[in-house]
Amino acid sequence: MDEMETARRCAETMWEVDNASRLLGIEVEVTEPGAAVARMRVSKTMVNGFDVCHGGMLFTLADTAFAFAANSYNRVTLTASGKIEFLRPAMLDDQLEAIASEDYRGRRTGFYTVKVTNQAGEVMALFRGRSVSRDDPILTPES
Amino acid sequence: MDEMETARRCAETMWEVDNASRLLGIEVEVTEPGAAVARMRVSKTMVNGFDVCHGGMLFTLADTAFAFAANSYNRVTLTASGKIEFLRPAMLDDQLEAIASEDYRGRRTGFYTVKVTNQAGEVMALFRGRSVSRDDPILTPES
Amino acid sequence: MDEMETARRCAETMWEVDNASRLLGIEVEVTEPGAAVARMRVSKTMVNGFDVCHGGMLFTLADTAFAFAANSYNRVTLTASGKIEFLRPAMLDDQLEAIASEDYRGRRTGFYTVKVTNQAGEVMALFRGRSVSRDDPILTPES
Amino acid sequence: MDEMETARRCAETMWEVDNASRLLGIEVEVTEPGAAVARMRVSKTMVNGFDVCHGGMLFTLADTAFAFAANSYNRVTLTASGKIEFLRPAMLDDQLEAIASEDYRGRRTGFYTVKVTNQAGEVMALFRGRSVSRDDPILTPES
Repeated sequence: MDEMETARRCAETMWEVDNASRLLGIEVEVTEPGAAVARMRVSKTMVNGFDVCHGGMLFTLADTAFAFAANSYNRVTLTASGKIEFLRPAMLDDQLEAIASEDYRGRRTGFYTVKVTNQAGEVMALFRGRSVSRDDPILTPES
Repeated sequence: MDEMETARRCAETMWEVDNASRLLGIEVEVTEPGAAVARMRVSKTMVNGFDVCHGGMLFTLADTAFAFAANSYNRVTLTASGKIEFLRPAMLDDQLEAIASEDYRGRRTGFYTVKVTNQAGEVMALFRGRSVSRDDPILTPES
Repeated sequence: MDEMETARRCAETMWEVDNASRLLGIEVEVTEPGAAVARMRVSKTMVNGFDVCHGGMLFTLADTAFAFAANSYNRVTLTASGKIEFLRPAMLDDQLEAIASEDYRGRRTGFYTVKVTNQAGEVMALFRGRSVSRDDPILTPES
Repeated sequence: MDEMETARRCAETMWEVDNASRLLGIEVEVTEPGAAVARMRVSKTMVNGFDVCHGGMLFTLADTAFAFAANSYNRVTLTASGKIEFLRPAMLDDQLEAIASEDYRGRRTGFYTVKVTNQAGEVMALFRGRSVSRDDPILTPES
């Protein structure tokens, strides 16, 4: 099984248990080992009374892209910390895209950057994640 | 109107527009100017297939406590960035409490720490927020 | 040996090997387990052509206070990461004080906040440190 | 004057006032607008009694690369915050290289990543900087 195939199967396994992302209507795809893209439309339940998207929803979107990127090597990998810089307010109905890329991956620790843009290509948020990997594989023999 | 009364009214005004926190069942209270506490029970929609709470939900809880603390001075104050360190996994039905306190407040910038604990008093997450204030008041003459 | 005595001896042992802090004229004291204060005067070699102190020197001062606080439990503890927010420029001849306090200490990981003030009590910088402890003791049987 | 020529002249102007970097023997070069590389050999004065380089010196090296990258657009730009993750200890005589690149640049705020490697190409530290720009130009009419 090559690296890209492994990454894809890890993503499928993660997706099965990730209710929260599904509830928010997030779609996510691993584009290569260590990289992923997640997409979400800002819905009525994500905004406040001024139609501005809640920061926690942007965090969740970015964190999802990060988690799929970090878990593409068939080792169970957890988010140790996530930081998000809010650059522009996301509004109701915005189509958001979060692109995760890898800055560094050591034996146990990884660092990733996720850029969140809107339909106009404007950068809405910048996310930095630190991950910690365990030795357990994500894929079971039959997966 | 004294400082504590101002803080309370700011919280009421914020609460009216904060749909997202309400949807998650978050309760929040300003305890003194610059300090707030938010509470949330981890529900079925917040967890993954292993009953572990999604990091984005913990972020949202902490960010809510932070936002109410930072907005207690009657100046419109936005989250510039938020960082969360995940220390222990929160599980389904956990009763979480997020306590926000102020580390520094300048003319425009503020820094806050939020500690998230569970019903056993264990620290689940540590959040750091940076806020930026505008000159606009939160309260309108009639509020 | 009580906790405070242990903390003091750990500080002495660390001080013996910390050339860099000494070269900058930093003085440091552990005030209780998990807390320390470091002091430094901004000298000619620390400033740029406009007499503004280099950020790296403020970082070093704060990091020293943090390291002594984190190493006060007789376990070898390293700085995993340090973040500094620069709030006001420190100037030539400023007398700086860095006060480190503990936000959380787990079995291996610790989080600390360091506030750097000048002689007028103004906050110059806010530092956040994450530490990782090993199982080795700092004190040898004869120390 | 084209962008690269502007970037080079900004670097010259900054270098003239940056005593601290010079004292540490740091060399720095702007490679394109928004990007810079800084180099430093770990000397006896930078290490502790175990020949391990002080974190503050790594911070200073990374911060220098970041500052030159962020100041390459002929607008006076300050470090608002810097975060460094220490991945491997740098040792006496190590030849370190810090490569700064731009993650995002808005009207006033910029975000940069700096990777610090040693002579073997190992990543020693990962630095994230946030900059704030003023409207003043760096270059005077005669510079």
